[in-house]
Amino acid sequence: MTFEQRLAQNATAVDGWLDIRLSDAEVSAPHLWRAMRYASLGAGKRLRPFLLIETATMFGVAHVAALPAAGALECIHCYSLVHDDLPAMDDDDLRRGKPTVHKAYDEATAILAGDALLTLAFEILSAEEVHEDTAIRLELVQALAKACGADGMAGGQMLDLAAETIPASLDDIRLIQSLKTGCLIKHACHAGAILGRASDEQTACLLAYAEKLGLAFQIADDLLDHESSPDAIGKATQKDANAGKATFVSLLGADEARTLAQLQVEQAIDALSDFGAEADMLRAAAEFAIMREK
Amino acid sequence: MTFEQRLAQNATAVDGWLDIRLSDAEVSAPHLWRAMRYASLGAGKRLRPFLLIETATMFGVAHVAALPAAGALECIHCYSLVHDDLPAMDDDDLRRGKPTVHKAYDEATAILAGDALLTLAFEILSAEEVHEDTAIRLELVQALAKACGADGMAGGQMLDLAAETIPASLDDIRLIQSLKTGCLIKHACHAGAILGRASDEQTACLLAYAEKLGLAFQIADDLLDHESSPDAIGKATQKDANAGKATFVSLLGADEARTLAQLQVEQAIDALSDFGAEADMLRAAAEFAIMREK
Repeated sequence: MTFEQRLAQNATAVDGWLDIRLSDAEVSAPHLWRAMRYASLGAGKRLRPFLLIETATMFGVAHVAALPAAGALECIHCYSLVHDDLPAMDDDDLRRGKPTVHKAYDEATAILAGDALLTLAFEILSAEEVHEDTAIRLELVQALAKACGADGMAGGQMLDLAAETIPASLDDIRLIQSLKTGCLIKHACHAGAILGRASDEQTACLLAYAEKLGLAFQIADDLLDHESSPDAIGKATQKDANAGKATFVSLLGADEARTLAQLQVEQAIDALSDFGAEADMLRAAAEFAIMREK
Repeated sequence: MTFEQRLAQNATAVDGWLDIRLSDAEVSAPHLWRAMRYASLGAGKRLRPFLLIETATMFGVAHVAALPAAGALECIHCYSLVHDDLPAMDDDDLRRGKPTVHKAYDEATAILAGDALLTLAFEILSAEEVHEDTAIRLELVQALAKACGADGMAGGQMLDLAAETIPASLDDIRLIQSLKTGCLIKHACHAGAILGRASDEQTACLLAYAEKLGLAFQIADDLLDHESSPDAIGKATQKDANAGKATFVSLLGADEARTLAQLQVEQAIDALSDFGAEADMLRAAAEFAIMREK
């Protein structure tokens, strides 16, 4: 199976799992559940769930057994998109090719749908289907909370907003990336390693891989933003440049940014040298990070 | 020790615990941590932590051992206040006698501070200091996520916002209260029962107590809103009445609402009849719910 096929297969499986988990059949506030479904089902590469599942399966975890943890992770990613798109934040109207949640519903519903998706992730992780061992589930809860909290993703978004008014250096941009998008990508591999009971050494290699991958992914995002169109990538482009906000591309130029991204991909693949063919999907994911068209 | 003294003592202990936990000494985004501190330290009755601590101590849990779980619960309560106060939600400028977070900072910071406090609650609960037994910690995570998620507090806030445009009946108001404020008050006693390894029967009594207490508390809130002033209670008053929004007071009248609240207090105390003097603080809390002046 090619990487693209496996990515699509995993995305379908995660979507199917979320579709059932987010059923709004017997709920008190169906409007809120509809907004949560709108925010999380449908398009989306599902890269983070992919990384979680593929990391876990390296250690013999069944694909289906990794789905709940992958679904929880995607809930967090989707909540962050909903809140980041709000008028008070990045003020985006388009996401994954359709109106953002506050456009399709309203701001209050978008705030609450984000809150509820964030909360749901922890409810999912606490359930027995995630793993029979309570210590493993608790480790997943802790790792996820750290990855997406004030010293992780939320802190990164805060710094990113500040960078709209204070000129940012390459070091600043690097820190923002490592928190805002890096932490959750790293968590995807970390969670897979936790589920698979990977050794400390194996986990360290996977985290090194994910760190490089995350940076490559962000630089590729900046390049897409610089060179693509809203029609092609399903969200607004060149917003940062128009706002005079620093990115890897604005600070380094497109060519040097591309070289830096390529270097990260090579280092990501190098970090997996202790693993055999079981890590091929992760290697392919690193190549994909900079080859993708959206 | 009187009830008021114990309430103040617990509030000071929770505040002290949060002050240390929310230390912003070595963080990536200090601005965000400052907003989180602003949102959660200082004034506040700390009723939910009080209920958690006093329930846990009924079963021999040391006061200090219940503080982390109580702190996590207060993080959730504070996050909900920050988000509910946003312009897109209840649009409040004053909270606990000082400007709301989006007034003191800005909307983006308020959204992120709320998100980060919500996330922090789960990080806190996953840590060993909460309880040595991983199954207990996981039970707390699950109970909290359910209490504050889409079928709990967040769902209640969604219904409450909808009630601004669609006339609400007494049943509607009752449902909104049970979700928006009831779930978290109930969770406080539930979490104390989990920490104390209460039996199923004991837990059921405590949940029945908390349900009655929550309703009494909400009716008292509506009465305070109706009869008090912003100076006295530290937040805007009569907003619901001015917006033509139904409350227990608008639907029942002040006298009947007061009678209903008194009945809830009596039933709350009745629910504790299997317990002896160890439940006296909870009994006093039920009396306090309708006697308080803010």
